[in-house]
Amino acid sequence: MTTSQRESLGVGLLGVGVVGSAVARALLEGRTQQTVPGSHPLVLKQAVVRNLESERPVPRDLLSDDVASVVDNPDVDIVVELMGGEEPASSSIRAALKSGKHVITANKEAIAKNGDELIALAEANGVRLLYEAAVGGGIPIIGPLSSDLLANKIQSLRAIINGTTNYILTRMTAQGEAFDDVLADAQALGYAEADPTADVDGWDAMYKIAILARLAYGASVPLDSIHREGIRPVTASDIRNAATLGYTIKLIAVARLEEGGLLVRVHPALIPNSVPMAKVDGVLNVCEIEGDLVGPLWLQGRGAGPEATASAVLGDIIRVARAPKTINPPRKLSSPPALLEMSDYECQYYLRLVAKDQPGVLAEVAGILASRSISIDSVLQMDSNPEAGTADIVLTTHPAREREVQQAVEQISAVSSIEKFASLLRIEPYGDTPA
Amino acid sequence: MTTSQRESLGVGLLGVGVVGSAVARALLEGRTQQTVPGSHPLVLKQAVVRNLESERPVPRDLLSDDVASVVDNPDVDIVVELMGGEEPASSSIRAALKSGKHVITANKEAIAKNGDELIALAEANGVRLLYEAAVGGGIPIIGPLSSDLLANKIQSLRAIINGTTNYILTRMTAQGEAFDDVLADAQALGYAEADPTADVDGWDAMYKIAILARLAYGASVPLDSIHREGIRPVTASDIRNAATLGYTIKLIAVARLEEGGLLVRVHPALIPNSVPMAKVDGVLNVCEIEGDLVGPLWLQGRGAGPEATASAVLGDIIRVARAPKTINPPRKLSSPPALLEMSDYECQYYLRLVAKDQPGVLAEVAGILASRSISIDSVLQMDSNPEAGTADIVLTTHPAREREVQQAVEQISAVSSIEKFASLLRIEPYGDTPA
Repeated sequence: MTTSQRESLGVGLLGVGVVGSAVARALLEGRTQQTVPGSHPLVLKQAVVRNLESERPVPRDLLSDDVASVVDNPDVDIVVELMGGEEPASSSIRAALKSGKHVITANKEAIAKNGDELIALAEANGVRLLYEAAVGGGIPIIGPLSSDLLANKIQSLRAIINGTTNYILTRMTAQGEAFDDVLADAQALGYAEADPTADVDGWDAMYKIAILARLAYGASVPLDSIHREGIRPVTASDIRNAATLGYTIKLIAVARLEEGGLLVRVHPALIPNSVPMAKVDGVLNVCEIEGDLVGPLWLQGRGAGPEATASAVLGDIIRVARAPKTINPPRKLSSPPALLEMSDYECQYYLRLVAKDQPGVLAEVAGILASRSISIDSVLQMDSNPEAGTADIVLTTHPAREREVQQAVEQISAVSSIEKFASLLRIEPYGDTPA
Repeated sequence: MTTSQRESLGVGLLGVGVVGSAVARALLEGRTQQTVPGSHPLVLKQAVVRNLESERPVPRDLLSDDVASVVDNPDVDIVVELMGGEEPASSSIRAALKSGKHVITANKEAIAKNGDELIALAEANGVRLLYEAAVGGGIPIIGPLSSDLLANKIQSLRAIINGTTNYILTRMTAQGEAFDDVLADAQALGYAEADPTADVDGWDAMYKIAILARLAYGASVPLDSIHREGIRPVTASDIRNAATLGYTIKLIAVARLEEGGLLVRVHPALIPNSVPMAKVDGVLNVCEIEGDLVGPLWLQGRGAGPEATASAVLGDIIRVARAPKTINPPRKLSSPPALLEMSDYECQYYLRLVAKDQPGVLAEVAGILASRSISIDSVLQMDSNPEAGTADIVLTTHPAREREVQQAVEQISAVSSIEKFASLLRIEPYGDTPA
């Protein structure tokens, strides 16, 4: 079939921000026809914006401020949702799928929260729901998990998938700066939002790992089953101590088959400097995938930015334009793995205590740990503060169970010679076998 | 549509070596049904082997030694070609496509040499020709270039895509061993073939970059347009000198848009130790892709091995099983970039000369380079050999044109105080702009 014989497909945009503008420009320039001869021609039919008066790269007569002008538009075959946030995005996606339109979205929150329902709705209506741009900017991750790697049983996904926190931690590591100072700077530079909660408290990374885990394990992963910690508690002192011990601190998102099931977790972790993940710096993202056939894979690139995200959105649009009748719902297993609780997790721990500078403190702490069979790997006494009469004690443990460690932390916090239990961080296990 | 309603698809195997055995086992175990519920069930119908008496993981009644029993078999919908080599593989692929069967192959030589014809034949017959396993083992590279990244104009592909040579160079680098010794060892360990020509002389890497360049640039890339050099001329001394200068030597395959067109080249190169590619060691493969929207991508994994290759073959089989009617021929541009000659390439060079240990040699060499406007970046005098009365002179140049450098090399070789012109290696440019 030649291009001239192929019917064109109408595209409707919901949201024309930086990503939407890049997508609109590409469609208006006919970029997809130039790069993929032979696919159905794509025509931008309508774009919905909140404020009709702002400057956009879309002709005025294609703009509207009414979502219905896209989702109910008979000329629109593909709805591209770029509004972000759970609502009204999820409702718009729902409406579009119900009226038989393919939906492409970059919305990690909507897909993480409502993906099970939306995926089923797309299947029921015989249309496609694609969301490569929701995770890792333009890095092909959803694509490989949805297609190339389908013969594999995935054993582990481990990723740095939030650029903002990786930028902040990289700056803190390189320059010894404090979290608040770097955050303020990142906000000024546009690398962090005015309200940084979604990024720095790990919500964004949690949405993304939930999406990846659903695809990789054919399982529903409710958000409340995911252990989530952000980077606010990580101090310049922790970063320095980690460096002394041979580690770099990163916010990681992990979905890994452990004994008994699947554990999904997002938290800052000490990464051994000898492994490549310790060197993924700045706004880069990476996803390590371990499959039983393919072995370890490493997919790295820019995790954000209008062009990189538009690359993924346009890639999904082209997928539909090349095969509008092909509906491949994601892997869904009839007996997916059980979801494990963080309290059963076992790894090495990094603990930092601010102790009164007096004899016997370490003996008492060591006694508490020993009573719970947590054995100490190393002890550093750092950052004495003679004025306050305190010193930091940094301990690393041999592999221990989260539940035991948390209980020990409670006990240690109650010791009178401990001013403050300052940090609990996990050391990410590397090597052939789980810790 | 539920699984029970879907018709099964018959699979015929051509070749049951290590990869074929892994694919056969997966099909016989029903692995694809377990990992991708809802796709067409796959049934192994026939497997062709050269020697019917060898032990195989395929029931005896499915084995045959006649290619026609697969390519002419009405029960076979998908032919999986794993024989390797140009012939009889290419003819078998041709016959299968002509009789309306989908073809999946891991055969880089057949696809590099006859891909244009075979791709057209598949399109004309309304069937699919898939070959993810031909490049980079199980790393998704063909998939992303064929689908996820289609909105991008690809600016550069740079890859380590031959595991054997990377293993040899890694050992030479780590242990200072000579090429011949490591090669013998690699052969004993099964990392190199008895006849190592395809790997060590760069043929394998050339086939692979030809395949990637065709996909990325929508262009036919005849093999004789590709500059190819292998690693035989690289000595332990070159590797030591490179280390002294801050570089690691790797065999790289590059397809990059330069001024005026596309240059495709395979050769050993000095990689700055500060970039990640210098640390891709052993049998790992990596492909760096630079797209105008997505920016730089890094796809890394095991480039070979039966399971990793089977992962890619099975991924392609599943692609067909999920959408047997979807035919998406690869990108083919009506005006693809012109193919450039190596002689116009410009980069920094590493030159090693064995000179008689006498005054004036360096002045003469420098004079020849200066007469061609090649300016010297650094000079090392190494490895004096008092008995022979010779010394190695190592020069690096500022960016210079290949043609000029080759002519200078000829002139230098003719200088009476030069015992031998020993090495010409290129320093791979990194940074935002081409050298």
